[in-house]
Amino acid sequence: MSRPGQLHLNAFLMGVGHHEAAWRLPESDPRADVDVEHYKNLARIAERGKLDSLFLADGPVLWDQVGRRPSGSLEPTVLLTALAGATERIGLIATASTTYNEPYNLARRFASLDLVSGGRAGWNIVTTAGLDAARNFNLDALPAHHERYQRAAEFVDVSLKLWDSWDDDVVLADKAGGVWGDQGKIYPPAHRGAHFRVAGALNVPRTPQGHPLLVQAGSSANGRNFAARYAEAVFTAHQTLADAQEFYDDLKRRAAEHGRDPDHVKILPGIVPLIGATEAAARELDAELNRLIRAEFALPGLAELLGVDVADLRLDAELPAHLPAEEQIEGAKSRRTLVVNLGRRERLTVREIIARLGGGRGHLTFAGTAEQVADAIVAWYDNGAADGFNIMPPVLPSSLERFVDEVVPILQERGRFRTEYAGRTLREHYGLPRPANRNTGAAQPDVALRP
Amino acid sequence: MSRPGQLHLNAFLMGVGHHEAAWRLPESDPRADVDVEHYKNLARIAERGKLDSLFLADGPVLWDQVGRRPSGSLEPTVLLTALAGATERIGLIATASTTYNEPYNLARRFASLDLVSGGRAGWNIVTTAGLDAARNFNLDALPAHHERYQRAAEFVDVSLKLWDSWDDDVVLADKAGGVWGDQGKIYPPAHRGAHFRVAGALNVPRTPQGHPLLVQAGSSANGRNFAARYAEAVFTAHQTLADAQEFYDDLKRRAAEHGRDPDHVKILPGIVPLIGATEAAARELDAELNRLIRAEFALPGLAELLGVDVADLRLDAELPAHLPAEEQIEGAKSRRTLVVNLGRRERLTVREIIARLGGGRGHLTFAGTAEQVADAIVAWYDNGAADGFNIMPPVLPSSLERFVDEVVPILQERGRFRTEYAGRTLREHYGLPRPANRNTGAAQPDVALRP
Repeated sequence: MSRPGQLHLNAFLMGVGHHEAAWRLPESDPRADVDVEHYKNLARIAERGKLDSLFLADGPVLWDQVGRRPSGSLEPTVLLTALAGATERIGLIATASTTYNEPYNLARRFASLDLVSGGRAGWNIVTTAGLDAARNFNLDALPAHHERYQRAAEFVDVSLKLWDSWDDDVVLADKAGGVWGDQGKIYPPAHRGAHFRVAGALNVPRTPQGHPLLVQAGSSANGRNFAARYAEAVFTAHQTLADAQEFYDDLKRRAAEHGRDPDHVKILPGIVPLIGATEAAARELDAELNRLIRAEFALPGLAELLGVDVADLRLDAELPAHLPAEEQIEGAKSRRTLVVNLGRRERLTVREIIARLGGGRGHLTFAGTAEQVADAIVAWYDNGAADGFNIMPPVLPSSLERFVDEVVPILQERGRFRTEYAGRTLREHYGLPRPANRNTGAAQPDVALRP
Repeated sequence: MSRPGQLHLNAFLMGVGHHEAAWRLPESDPRADVDVEHYKNLARIAERGKLDSLFLADGPVLWDQVGRRPSGSLEPTVLLTALAGATERIGLIATASTTYNEPYNLARRFASLDLVSGGRAGWNIVTTAGLDAARNFNLDALPAHHERYQRAAEFVDVSLKLWDSWDDDVVLADKAGGVWGDQGKIYPPAHRGAHFRVAGALNVPRTPQGHPLLVQAGSSANGRNFAARYAEAVFTAHQTLADAQEFYDDLKRRAAEHGRDPDHVKILPGIVPLIGATEAAARELDAELNRLIRAEFALPGLAELLGVDVADLRLDAELPAHLPAEEQIEGAKSRRTLVVNLGRRERLTVREIIARLGGGRGHLTFAGTAEQVADAIVAWYDNGAADGFNIMPPVLPSSLERFVDEVVPILQERGRFRTEYAGRTLREHYGLPRPANRNTGAAQPDVALRP
């Protein structure tokens, strides 16, 4: 497949880095987790590199023990609004849960972010795995995986109706006649579904992007179907080129089956770039970070992911021979399977698995020189495994700085990455059209609304 | 009562002004309703005047017909986050509904705003009247007034538990030992109440202010009880000094009955200042704005407030003799009674009532010179009717500029208003202490948690 174009790069920001032990390095500020100036600095570095977007993961829950790593997590729409004011062009993608929000509130907040940022907002749609989150929202059990995805689909349908509830040309601003807007161009959703009833129009006009970029990151069967229908960008985790190619082909095909242009679904695997002046230096940084992991802090989370008791895992042994199947897991299905396959394939001990996850939680960690990192990125891109990458710097800000200052110029020299922003909006960076309003006639669907 | 101190001033921002016809003036930008640069300009003007805070009203609903006035309404926590980046000191108070949010999400968002702004966040707690809002949140009827307040009380209780779920000194940042935080200083709410079950701690540390300033604006019996228990600042609407004095004394007494220091509840009546070089010029601006109101747009909202059909109201007649009593209204009770009393007392026609409400929706409109406005403010303050004022500029930005540049200097000259910020946080501006963490022993309660 010939794809002569340029690739897309997203900077996935997380505290002082994706490696869970990054905060222990001498260079790291262990209180940066809730320091807006730290994030403004990261955003400016990423924008200096002309990256497409910033991304924040999220869950409405205090993860793990606070002993393990910096645990403060500013709410993403608030934090990205602050970053909008510190940047000019880069896109701003916030994670938010369809299980623990209401469509009217969330659609409005993303529309507000899109307006405040001049068309730079994206929403990473998640259904939120984990019992602990459920117990913060009046529940005693996690809703089943398929139920969460059913609610998510209806949530997005309602959100699209809300974002289209104003036509683009509502505002008349007729001062002489005393008529501000044209009520005939307001389209209240009047939605009555299994999970939601939403009668009225949004109280925010249609936004610069029409609606925020829709992003998705689940790779289970439910997740792939959901992504094929709605997502315009997909974050995904693969350890091998073959797995990434399978996912890439599968998702593009599913999107086409929904009547969508497969090129309007951008697929971005995660990569944790450990960059050194030499390959040996990069590997030494990797080893140093893994030495700093306290594995006992990571055990409870791994046990929950696998659906076993903590007592069933022994740090210096391989995974237990018998583990619950993916079908029996109601949490993060695809992440569970990736971890099991990794452990089995490479015959890793639990401690080694924790080290691998500690760096990227299942995403591909790549240690090498800037040239080697660029080679790896281009290879996956050229071999039909990716439209771009979700860059997960293990240490922040230093790993992001190295990526921007050392890897990006190589990609630019090879003609694989922009040297200047061509557009103003997040959609423009990703080469995606501004969607037509569904109430006034759309051409090919940008996302597939259910009938 | 001797109160030699200085008064407090809040700038209540609303689009291009509180007067519903302000957008029709030649000077007004009719598209400023969703323009973040417009709001940044207003915030900087208010901060130039050393005002205590900015405030945004809110409801999750598209009000009225869009013909009437600019109708876009950016979500307040997003907009105030943007304004935090454009200012240094001024407080930032956002309205949010306890009826249509979940405590974990909202407490987290306000904590995030408090962290991002360096301790400048306030939450105006509302229960949200109106059937149209209910119908955006899966309901076919508005929950009853007392039910909304019961939910609100539990919502605030849970929020306080969440804000106190981290001790102030959780973070150890022990790099050598590999322990970031002290799990023993995390206090999960484990809340199980009539409306909410919230098990886990917040994923945001305790904030600069301990928790955001709690603000309240309902003046019904339910509203006063709620304010007496929780509120640290109260926005209120009165047309006469006597009414304002009654409210002031009543609320301070109720706060004392809850074991609180009455001085820790700041009472701020609304005032719509129409400032002219002469009193006649101010009155002419008032008249011009009222001529620009299209009364037919305002009728449906007035009818809903009064609990009657639109057909029951005639523009050039007084209010109907028989109206539903406050007890029969499930919406904005105290606002309904204020409007009825205004109409009866001054024998106003419906058209005249609409003109009076069009300026300030029941708040006191005061037209005069800067000197006269300052006199009125000081008179209410000295006569035990107010701790300060909620300034509602009828036209924005011009009415705010005049207030800041003409009225504030007079108040400063008279020693009634600060000439420089003394503190950094919103609490410091209002002279309120940072609350102790309830989990580690508090002195006198800053707000009265229910047992």
